[in-house]
Parts: sequence; structure tokens; C-alpha cells
Amino acid sequence: VKKTPQGGTLEGLGEVDMIRLIQSMVSAERPHHLVKGIGDDCAVLKTPEDRELLVTTDTLIEGVHFTNQTLSPALLGWKSLAVSVSDIAAMGGKPHTAFLAMSIQRSRPVDFVKAFMEGFRACAGDMGVALAGGDVTESQSSAVITVTVLGACLSENVVYRSGAGVGDDVWVTGPLGNAAGGLFLLLNRKVSEHPHYSPLIMAHQKPSPPLDVGMALGESGLVHAMIDISDGIAKDLGHICEESGVGAMLVADALPTSEELERLTAEAGKEILGWALQGGEDYELLFTASPGSEERILSVTEEVSGRPAVKIGTIISGEGVWLETEKGREPLAPGGFVHFSK
Amino acid sequence: VKKTPQGGTLEGLGEVDMIRLIQSMVSAERPHHLVKGIGDDCAVLKTPEDRELLVTTDTLIEGVHFTNQTLSPALLGWKSLAVSVSDIAAMGGKPHTAFLAMSIQRSRPVDFVKAFMEGFRACAGDMGVALAGGDVTESQSSAVITVTVLGACLSENVVYRSGAGVGDDVWVTGPLGNAAGGLFLLLNRKVSEHPHYSPLIMAHQKPSPPLDVGMALGESGLVHAMIDISDGIAKDLGHICEESGVGAMLVADALPTSEELERLTAEAGKEILGWALQGGEDYELLFTASPGSEERILSVTEEVSGRPAVKIGTIISGEGVWLETEKGREPLAPGGFVHFSK
Repeated sequence: VKKTPQGGTLEGLGEVDMIRLIQSMVSAERPHHLVKGIGDDCAVLKTPEDRELLVTTDTLIEGVHFTNQTLSPALLGWKSLAVSVSDIAAMGGKPHTAFLAMSIQRSRPVDFVKAFMEGFRACAGDMGVALAGGDVTESQSSAVITVTVLGACLSENVVYRSGAGVGDDVWVTGPLGNAAGGLFLLLNRKVSEHPHYSPLIMAHQKPSPPLDVGMALGESGLVHAMIDISDGIAKDLGHICEESGVGAMLVADALPTSEELERLTAEAGKEILGWALQGGEDYELLFTASPGSEERILSVTEEVSGRPAVKIGTIISGEGVWLETEKGREPLAPGGFVHFSK
Repeated sequence: VKKTPQGGTLEGLGEVDMIRLIQSMVSAERPHHLVKGIGDDCAVLKTPEDRELLVTTDTLIEGVHFTNQTLSPALLGWKSLAVSVSDIAAMGGKPHTAFLAMSIQRSRPVDFVKAFMEGFRACAGDMGVALAGGDVTESQSSAVITVTVLGACLSENVVYRSGAGVGDDVWVTGPLGNAAGGLFLLLNRKVSEHPHYSPLIMAHQKPSPPLDVGMALGESGLVHAMIDISDGIAKDLGHICEESGVGAMLVADALPTSEELERLTAEAGKEILGWALQGGEDYELLFTASPGSEERILSVTEEVSGRPAVKIGTIISGEGVWLETEKGREPLAPGGFVHFSK
């Protein structure tokens, strides 16, 4: 890689050396399944014969999904891969290969790319993913990061959104609303000075999709439908309901929330229920299973992650997502961030 | 799909209906290999057991790769898929599945997306590719389109950039510089009024990668190294040389150019050699083979496409790409567009 002056920008580095820089920061060890990674017209992969191929693509855009106030370059690198890995987890699959399309301004420091790749590499290492290719292009305004992740799953273990049945329990793998609380803190600095809120900030900045839990649930054969929580459970459960042709009743008192979030919402005068239902970006898993599977769901999830899943509602006939509180039952608006909406 | 007023924008449509719109414009027939397409956390694919998986990702950015002066929405849809298919062709592979990440402004008309998808679908139909997923996100400034294409190839037929050997002939599948001429015409409207220049404009706007030729060359076992012409042959042949540890000598008089380009360069007072060497975006294939394979290369390429490949130079020892003209031999600068360069 060409030596660049301390504090140099991509304009001084150029496209070829930027690809070399990225290549130099990828794990030197080529995984067995990767016949050819970065450096040809295509990556060439051997895929396991007995498994189906899972593919997912996600884009993060500066000013929409993140700003330099909410994510450092290294955390952006981590998160841009983690959000796609979360989709693989939601099918019960195991991710193996990633492709990175990075469009950034020429005025960016080279150190931005280095820090981004450090975060990306750390996540790739944790998740067992190899970076095998991509595209680097010059953006005229904001940074746009698109990551495609490939994974594998035995055909009989793939969990779709469409399998929920009336009477199923609705489960979630972890606390809800932490990422929304973290984002609030990042956008309202004064409150964030309290160090005990760091789990909330981490939930927004450095999500760790519960891959092992997703795989174990897929293998267990107990799960009827599954999705990752990217837009908030109101909306994500709505997707399961639509694809399965059912409705869902959530029990407000059953929704798991963290002590930190309870403290923050009390302090900031916010409704914890809104964040738990519509906050989004928690990257936990939301799934349904027969009531008879309750004990096994609890033991599988606790065994794999140390955190037993939490039962938060029931699949009902009809349509839409409903919420049961002390006051009765009410239909739930999806809420959360919607692209292209007013 | 929600009815939108004539001339409505994406702001009136929203994210969910935009995905439905895209889904409604995808071929209704689900191909055999696609277990699940758009509508879950991941696409689920069956991959052929005896073949390797090829993966490529390319980004087109408004203001960098295209403007509304150079590409209509429909042609943008076509081209955004074609440029990735070209990478599959350059490995000798057959593309089967595409993923579309589209970031656009909420102020865009719904008709932009419809026209884009018509072009994308036409190209997908021609190339035998199924759209199986992606991501639609809101961009704050320019449109950014990233397409990932998956393909398949028998292990023994994959052609890499790294196989060129000293003494190999250098071949190209079609005329050079047409796309550069077309771009010049699009940016200098007065000249473009001549209808006889339309092949040049088509070369820029609606490239058709020679997929069948790429596959036939891979299957023939005759080809040592191959790449598609995206950046101009000076730069693309440079990639083959670098990866193969060799140099190359191009013969200026041997470079194939179209009558239309000859006419345009004469009329506009431009150097045809510069466009042929450094123009880029021709999306033909550039490859090397032993001199003893000449006749078979000619017959394979003519049989498949009706256009015999053209021999344009020789692989030599040393490094870099050289050009032989009447005046002698000179080293060739890669030229062409370089992201992040001054």
C-alpha cells in the first residue's frame, strides 16, 4: 500500500490503493470455502452441497441511518456487517461470506477507511464471515454502505416469516427498546454522560445478533416463524402476521426491558412502552412456537446464550398486531422509521 | 399496490408499497432454484452441487456514473444489472440471481421506479437472471444503485485474471471505444443529432455483455485469463498483467473500432486511439490464449455470436502494458476514470 501522509484523504490514496488497503485489512487466512476472494471479476465460492444458500443485502446511509454523532467509523464498520448477519440469524442460518459496496467522498481521511475496516473485521471475526469482494466508488455527498451476506442452512432448518399458526406463543430473545434508548442518548448528549447507560448506547452502536440462538432454534424444529427486530416488534411482528395470514396479541406487561432503559425513560420522561414496541434496531430475534414447546424453547435458548427467551404474546386469528394492557386491547400502529414517509 | 396519483412521488408511496411495486414488476414465474425470493429476511436458493458460486457487486452513482442527461431511468435499470452480469461473463459463468439495493430521494416520481424496474426486468429476462431480494432506502442527495449478481460455473471452466502466460495472444470480443463515443455524444448534444451514431449511444446506455461467448470460451478450455472491459483495455489488461506477473504488447493497428466511431472521431477532431484504449464501459471481454488456439478461438466466438474475436496483441515478459505503433513502442498509462483521483 502506498504511503500516505499522516491525515491524508482518499483523494491522495486513489481507488487501486484503497482496494489494496481494504485487502490488507482482511484476514490473511483464506477460508476453505473461498476459492477466490478480492482481486478478480467475481469471488468464487464452494457452497456446501447439502445446504441451501441464504442471501441478504442491507444499506446504511449517512444522514438517514447514522451520522458522525451516532456512530464512529469503526462502529459503522461493525454495524454495517452486523445488520446483515442478523437477517441470516433470523432464518436459522450460519453466515460465511460478505461483500462490501462502499461509496464515500474523496475528502474522507484514509483513517476513516482504516477504522471502518477494523470494525468490519472485528465483526467478521466474531460472526465467522469472510470478506470476499465488493466495490469502492466515489460518492459526491453522503456515505452509502451496502453489505451483502451469504449464509448456509439445512433445508429442513430454514425458518420463514410465513409459518406462524393461530395459538402459537410469540417469543423474543432479549430486551426491547435498548437501541432506541441508546440513540436518544447519542442525540441528547447531556443525559448520556451517565456511564450506567452504556449498555443502551452499545445496543444502538454495536449490535451482536444472536447467531447461535437462531441456529439452535432452527435446528430444534420447534420454531414456526422468525424475523429479526430491525424496525421494532410492532412492525416486525406485523410482517410475520402478514406473511402467515394471522394476527397477534402482545401483552404489555410481558415485554422485557432493561433496568437501564427503565431508568432512562423515568429520568427523561419518556414512554418505555413506545420504545419497546416501535424503537427498532434491537437485532434480537422474534419468533413463534406451539405452547407445548415452551419448556424446550426456554432450555434451548438458555443453554446456547445464557439468556432464556421471553414469551410476549400469542398468535390469533384475524389480522394486525394488538396490545393487551390493563386498560384493555388496542390495535397497534407499526410505528418506527419508514423510508420515504413524511 | 396502493393507487398513487398520476405523477406522484415516493413520499406518497412509502417504503412498503415501493417494495410491493418492485415485487409486482418481477417475473411472476419463480425459477426452480429460488426457494424464496423477495419477502423474507433472506432469499433462499438451491445452488447446483457440481458448480462453484460466482458473486459480484457493482455500484452506480448519480453524478459519477450517470446523470439524467446520459441515462433514462429505464436504461439505468438495464445498465445497473448488465455491468454486474458482465463480471460473471468474464469468469466464464452463467448468472442466475440478482439483488438490488436502491437508495433514492423521496422526491423521485413513482414513475422513475417503474421505468427503472422495466429496464431491470428486460435485462434480467435477456440474461436469465431472477431478482430475489435487496433493500430500498431513502437517499438524501443522489441515487445510489448497488446490484449483486450470483452465477454458477463448473470449477474447471472458471477463467481467472491470473492465468496469462508469456507468448499468449491477447484477444477482444468486439469493437473498442464505442461507449466512450456514445458518452461524448450524450454530453455534446449537437453532434448526437445524427441518427447513424445510435450504435455508439447504445453502447454506453444499454451494454449487452457477451455472456454466451464468455461461457463458450470457459468451456473451450482454451482461455488462460479473462476480464471484462469496464475501465478501458489499457487498465483492464493491466489487471491481467499484474495478477499474472507478465506484461503485454498491444498493436495499435489491430484494435477493432467501428465505422461509426471512426466517423465521429474524424468529425469531432478526437483521437480514436485514446477512446479505444482508455474509454472504458465497452463491456466486451478481453482474454488471452496460446497462439496455437487461434483457429479454434475464431471458430468458437464466431459460432456463438456471429462475431469472431479479434487478436490485438501479445503477452510479454516483464510488466506493464505497451503499445506498438508505426513510431515504435511506448508504455501505456492506464487512463480511464479513477475513483478518488484528482
